[in-house]
Amino acid sequence: RVTDAIISSGPPAFVVMKFDHEGNVSSYEKKKTELCQELSLQARDLRFQHTTSLTARNNCIILRMASLKAIITPQSLLVLDFRGLGLERWLVLELAPQLASQAHSLPFEFRALEAILQHKVNTLQTRLNEVEPVILDVLESLVDPKILSAYRGKLHVLLQYGKSLSELETDIRVFKDSLLKILDEDEIIEELCLTKWTDPRVFEESSLDIDHAEEMELLLENYYMQTEELGNKARELKGLIDDSESVIFINLDSHRNVMMRLNLQLTMGSFSLTLFGLIGVAFGMNLTSNLEEDPRVFWLVTGMMFLGSGLMWRRLLSFLGRRLEPSLNPPIWKKALRASDVRTGVR
Amino acid sequence: RVTDAIISSGPPAFVVMKFDHEGNVSSYEKKKTELCQELSLQARDLRFQHTTSLTARNNCIILRMASLKAIITPQSLLVLDFRGLGLERWLVLELAPQLASQAHSLPFEFRALEAILQHKVNTLQTRLNEVEPVILDVLESLVDPKILSAYRGKLHVLLQYGKSLSELETDIRVFKDSLLKILDEDEIIEELCLTKWTDPRVFEESSLDIDHAEEMELLLENYYMQTEELGNKARELKGLIDDSESVIFINLDSHRNVMMRLNLQLTMGSFSLTLFGLIGVAFGMNLTSNLEEDPRVFWLVTGMMFLGSGLMWRRLLSFLGRRLEPSLNPPIWKKALRASDVRTGVR
Amino acid sequence: RVTDAIISSGPPAFVVMKFDHEGNVSSYEKKKTELCQELSLQARDLRFQHTTSLTARNNCIILRMASLKAIITPQSLLVLDFRGLGLERWLVLELAPQLASQAHSLPFEFRALEAILQHKVNTLQTRLNEVEPVILDVLESLVDPKILSAYRGKLHVLLQYGKSLSELETDIRVFKDSLLKILDEDEIIEELCLTKWTDPRVFEESSLDIDHAEEMELLLENYYMQTEELGNKARELKGLIDDSESVIFINLDSHRNVMMRLNLQLTMGSFSLTLFGLIGVAFGMNLTSNLEEDPRVFWLVTGMMFLGSGLMWRRLLSFLGRRLEPSLNPPIWKKALRASDVRTGVR
Amino acid sequence: RVTDAIISSGPPAFVVMKFDHEGNVSSYEKKKTELCQELSLQARDLRFQHTTSLTARNNCIILRMASLKAIITPQSLLVLDFRGLGLERWLVLELAPQLASQAHSLPFEFRALEAILQHKVNTLQTRLNEVEPVILDVLESLVDPKILSAYRGKLHVLLQYGKSLSELETDIRVFKDSLLKILDEDEIIEELCLTKWTDPRVFEESSLDIDHAEEMELLLENYYMQTEELGNKARELKGLIDDSESVIFINLDSHRNVMMRLNLQLTMGSFSLTLFGLIGVAFGMNLTSNLEEDPRVFWLVTGMMFLGSGLMWRRLLSFLGRRLEPSLNPPIWKKALRASDVRTGVR
Amino acid sequence: RVTDAIISSGPPAFVVMKFDHEGNVSSYEKKKTELCQELSLQARDLRFQHTTSLTARNNCIILRMASLKAIITPQSLLVLDFRGLGLERWLVLELAPQLASQAHSLPFEFRALEAILQHKVNTLQTRLNEVEPVILDVLESLVDPKILSAYRGKLHVLLQYGKSLSELETDIRVFKDSLLKILDEDEIIEELCLTKWTDPRVFEESSLDIDHAEEMELLLENYYMQTEELGNKARELKGLIDDSESVIFINLDSHRNVMMRLNLQLTMGSFSLTLFGLIGVAFGMNLTSNLEEDPRVFWLVTGMMFLGSGLMWRRLLSFLGRRLEPSLNPPIWKKALRASDVRTGVR
Repeated sequence: RVTDAIISSGPPAFVVMKFDHEGNVSSYEKKKTELCQELSLQARDLRFQHTTSLTARNNCIILRMASLKAIITPQSLLVLDFRGLGLERWLVLELAPQLASQAHSLPFEFRALEAILQHKVNTLQTRLNEVEPVILDVLESLVDPKILSAYRGKLHVLLQYGKSLSELETDIRVFKDSLLKILDEDEIIEELCLTKWTDPRVFEESSLDIDHAEEMELLLENYYMQTEELGNKARELKGLIDDSESVIFINLDSHRNVMMRLNLQLTMGSFSLTLFGLIGVAFGMNLTSNLEEDPRVFWLVTGMMFLGSGLMWRRLLSFLGRRLEPSLNPPIWKKALRASDVRTGVR
Repeated sequence: RVTDAIISSGPPAFVVMKFDHEGNVSSYEKKKTELCQELSLQARDLRFQHTTSLTARNNCIILRMASLKAIITPQSLLVLDFRGLGLERWLVLELAPQLASQAHSLPFEFRALEAILQHKVNTLQTRLNEVEPVILDVLESLVDPKILSAYRGKLHVLLQYGKSLSELETDIRVFKDSLLKILDEDEIIEELCLTKWTDPRVFEESSLDIDHAEEMELLLENYYMQTEELGNKARELKGLIDDSESVIFINLDSHRNVMMRLNLQLTMGSFSLTLFGLIGVAFGMNLTSNLEEDPRVFWLVTGMMFLGSGLMWRRLLSFLGRRLEPSLNPPIWKKALRASDVRTGVR
Repeated sequence: RVTDAIISSGPPAFVVMKFDHEGNVSSYEKKKTELCQELSLQARDLRFQHTTSLTARNNCIILRMASLKAIITPQSLLVLDFRGLGLERWLVLELAPQLASQAHSLPFEFRALEAILQHKVNTLQTRLNEVEPVILDVLESLVDPKILSAYRGKLHVLLQYGKSLSELETDIRVFKDSLLKILDEDEIIEELCLTKWTDPRVFEESSLDIDHAEEMELLLENYYMQTEELGNKARELKGLIDDSESVIFINLDSHRNVMMRLNLQLTMGSFSLTLFGLIGVAFGMNLTSNLEEDPRVFWLVTGMMFLGSGLMWRRLLSFLGRRLEPSLNPPIWKKALRASDVRTGVR
Repeated sequence: RVTDAIISSGPPAFVVMKFDHEGNVSSYEKKKTELCQELSLQARDLRFQHTTSLTARNNCIILRMASLKAIITPQSLLVLDFRGLGLERWLVLELAPQLASQAHSLPFEFRALEAILQHKVNTLQTRLNEVEPVILDVLESLVDPKILSAYRGKLHVLLQYGKSLSELETDIRVFKDSLLKILDEDEIIEELCLTKWTDPRVFEESSLDIDHAEEMELLLENYYMQTEELGNKARELKGLIDDSESVIFINLDSHRNVMMRLNLQLTMGSFSLTLFGLIGVAFGMNLTSNLEEDPRVFWLVTGMMFLGSGLMWRRLLSFLGRRLEPSLNPPIWKKALRASDVRTGVR
Repeated sequence: RVTDAIISSGPPAFVVMKFDHEGNVSSYEKKKTELCQELSLQARDLRFQHTTSLTARNNCIILRMASLKAIITPQSLLVLDFRGLGLERWLVLELAPQLASQAHSLPFEFRALEAILQHKVNTLQTRLNEVEPVILDVLESLVDPKILSAYRGKLHVLLQYGKSLSELETDIRVFKDSLLKILDEDEIIEELCLTKWTDPRVFEESSLDIDHAEEMELLLENYYMQTEELGNKARELKGLIDDSESVIFINLDSHRNVMMRLNLQLTMGSFSLTLFGLIGVAFGMNLTSNLEEDPRVFWLVTGMMFLGSGLMWRRLLSFLGRRLEPSLNPPIWKKALRASDVRTGVR
């Protein structure tokens, strides 16, 4: 902050790129105070405090859309502090021709406002287009039931892009709200029609068949609805993330249950072997059982150990089967459906 | 996009299907500019930028419902770019007779608007009817407590149809909002009554007993309420998915607990066998215990091993039983209910 | 649908039950067109498309509350298509006396409307009363910590009644909204006061001390508030289901942790026994250790096996204890509470 | 209900406690019809159907706050059916002096209304104060990571008080809404200023410096805002319950993972011992290996068994370590933060 | 409370710090009644009951922002009871110079109001800045997939700061609502422009180019929007906590599955060893198998035990692999995406 103060010790100045209504572009530096005088604005009108704002002051439209700060007058569009924001390409290659085009029968401020709002909507769309495929891709691989645990990197990506999506949603909502605020107040819309107030000749001429305020309302509403569609898509994407998370959890739980059942079945086997193995251990003791000399006993006991284990295991497995698949309730749910059908049918 | 540009290098044109109020149907191609001139509209009125729009411009109702773009004039209905959308069947078999029917005492624009809104509502209803039984079916099989793990395919289906349901909900909301916006502004409703402004004779005649604007409001409100009912059903379905997911989780957890208890009981058995089996292992060592020659000792020790294991296991099982079923709290909850009963009773 | 078409091939007709303001009840069949003529209504006024509607048309109140369709005129109440809906009992035993009672100083349409709205609210209340105790009962038994897994049937019941509750909530909301829509527009309320417009004598007489429109507003508001209370109860019930599900999950998880700790403790025991049992196995080998003849060695090794296992197990158990109960964080949370106390105190 | 009918077989009557504006208190029984006549009210004005209501009728304020039913006239406050509700203490010890106090320069109805609204807010506050510390206490002990399973009683308490909290939230909202409804309509506020209409002398005198309606609005708004603060606290408490439940689940899961890792480590140990113990078992067989006589072999094999088990276990443990702690992803998340910093910085 | 009563037994008094519009600061104690007389206010205007309030009464702006209570008159700003709140530094070092600065062309009350609102917004911002990095830090370490269980302290911190965040959200909302309430009513804005009503000369002079009410609206709106941005950030942070919790759960579950699979694989190994070890145990019995003397049998059986175990294990592992990775469903989801692409494309 100290260094900032030193650097900007001179009076504050804007780097301005000016587009006039004939398509000429010029770029220069101007002190804030001079700019204010020139446009009969007050210093605080050019504070640009909020990330998204669009107001009419003294026959100028002053707007800021994130990093883009601009002033629209009836004759020209001034873009302020445009450097280092990656806007140059758009300014020179797209904005300039768009403003110069005469296809539009409406006055200059409409062309300028439309160009900027379109740019804003495009930016939001671009951000959504960046986030959406990545999230869909991650979700696709996360809900894959084959995968058991290799989630880590994917989850990080999901979290990160989920955050971007939240921020995008906020920005969409803020932009929508700022348009809505204008649409709700007819006075502001009137004020935005600069030409109507400044250039009676142009106004009367054009107003033969067009009501400027109505056109302005249509223009703003158009971008409002485009933004709303973006917002809907973003919300659907959020919902998809939530739904997928449920599925991921069910998948993981389901895997676990499968493994746990296998584990339980093996534990049953081991238990059976241990139980009948004890017979072998008993006969392995250096104690006299008086059966030592009978050759048939060896095979008898050995057979008993293996057969006993096997039978025991089978018994336990069938017990498990019965335990997990109960004598089962009738399809209560189906009945519920039928009952509700009747209800809806009555409607 | 390059190919698009080449193909549409000629001036933009619409393929138009025209229904007049006597039931005649004709189909032709027309340039956008000609169409504008004919209807005294401006080019931007026919941009159809939003998926759902319904506006009155210069004695025409211009509307778009997803893929269906149409213009209603007091005498005719123009459906634009209808090819390749699967609409032909509906256009020829249903729309034409509906428009020609004279049952309706109201002017042509009412008939046309009603037919199109009805088509839209039917489309939404159809989509809900496709999604609902599949989801109910999947949920039915997922909440089945017998199933332990075979969810995979089902979950995919659930996720996919859940997504469709979200999209359907969005579309229902968008359609509802666009109707609501019109219902909220009496002026727009007035504008939608085309005949009232264009054909004074018809208007006066019919207005003896009917107020056009009021009829229009009833018509729109009717479809608004039908859409709301669809929206309610979609929301209930969403709620059912959520509730079922909870039940699925409880089911899976419950299964797991059952298996874990069985596993624990077997582990207790194995532990007992291992502990007392150690006695056998000890006597199996090639070391002198001086008990080797006594024949009773063999049976004594063997008996001890098996009996000890059994008793030990029984002990452990009853310990587990006590651990899992505590001396238990009084039915605090019942008390709470009673307390709340008193409260409501006082009301 | 085919059979429907055949049956209703004649002109549509209503089965009408008529209650006049003196308490007389008659029942007859009437064609839809005749009914319209008699009441000066139009055919589409009697379409009853929405499950819940309440409108005033041409000095009649036309309403539908789910299966109950009725028309109120200043002199009589017509209930349409009342058969097979289980309404007969209510119509004959309750509605008739209620309409005949002269306690009410207000005109007939008030009595009729009140009776029908009261019936609707009672129906909703009855449905809530059916659903509530079952849900509370199921929840009561599900949150019981003793139960480990026998949830299946209960869960089905919960799911089914949860669905009923959602549908009830929707119906309550729809009814509330339809009342609210009327309460928001004074004109509609005026229209609902039929006598005011049709019977000047009665009106003037009664209007000495009562403003009809105000009375109608009070009447509607009364049922609005009763419905709202029902809605509040339904929402509280939904919240209770959600809260209980959390508790069920915590309970199941908690059980599992208890069992897992027991399992772990036994696994530790088994490990210890296996480790020291290996000594016994070693000495059981048919290999010469040169210790075979020393009688003390047997008892020494056997003692070592058992004692070693015991000590090892104890060691492991205390390790587990330390692992699960860490040196523990100070009661950070209490501090947080205190800090927030200060903050609120400052308020 | 039968007994009720018998008891109240006489005409309905109210037990009334009357406070006049000079602080005198009297208590008597009065028939409903007489009371209506005395106050020029109609029978249905005194039905008190809703748990929370506040209306002005014919120069009386009629209100019900849960169990408290009262009528305010310009000269007196009548509390109806006050017995058996635990209100006596408040009525005699607090309400009487409050009404008699002359500190307030405003007319009697203001004092009475303020006293009753204050009582209502205090009741709500008291209920919150009862619920809050219990819930905080339970949560505090539930999120304690030391506790593994002793939740049962606590969970019941949480569920029960959570239900109370929901009911309290509903009551707060209902009270807030009933105040808001009045605040939204200036006419009702005017009607509530009883003195303004009945006692011109007092009114003119006092109105020199005070606008009654404005004072009434301030009074109501004051209690509205107090209720809103209560509602905010209740909502924060609800949020805290939700957050704590997440933490409880993470805690339980975390415990489980710790135990599962220990279990796995021991299982690895047991596996190693079993594997190498098999060598011992092999040499324990009564079969000739021709190694029986070599004394070194015993120690060799025994050493191999123990050493081999140890090495095997170590190998498995390090494998587990590697499996659970992957070569790990770069701090993707940090990058995300940085990127968002840039974005916010640009703002 | 008793001690409070004793201490404040004298008449209530305020400690006042007075800033006049020339930058002079004085501090003194004043009785509440005197202050009221001086400013022609009524006692109840200075009750400061709500934590956030901003009202105009009798040409004074009376406001409270949490602990800061202030009165703005056209000539001076009075800060009441400022001691012990940590406000002194701000009052002396920042507020005084800010009020004295003449940069602002607007009257004193604007400067004062702006300073106080800015202070409030700064306070909220500071609280967010304290909470945000801690929460991000905790989340960062919790979602780290390496960590298996060391969450305890972190979770406490998360819970604690989550609570702070909820409280901050409430405060932001309350502040926003109180600003919005003013912005919605033009009258209150007019009343806030004190100079306009009291100092005609200054007013006329300044009003040549500025509309006071409009300036006041801009000022309030400015802080409204700043607060909204804070609210957006707080909400995004809340969302991030929720998303991270999902990821934590997936991580924990994923770990568990990995461990469970390893455990299952080892259980399979142990089972195989136990099964084939039984052969060894059988031959270890002191029973005659008649194979004792054949030296090849020892190696044969030993080899069979080890080899058999190995093969058995391998079999089981491949069975597990097949069980967990099913023959797998086609990428249904991708198809769903494509289908939805078509749908959007049609739009």
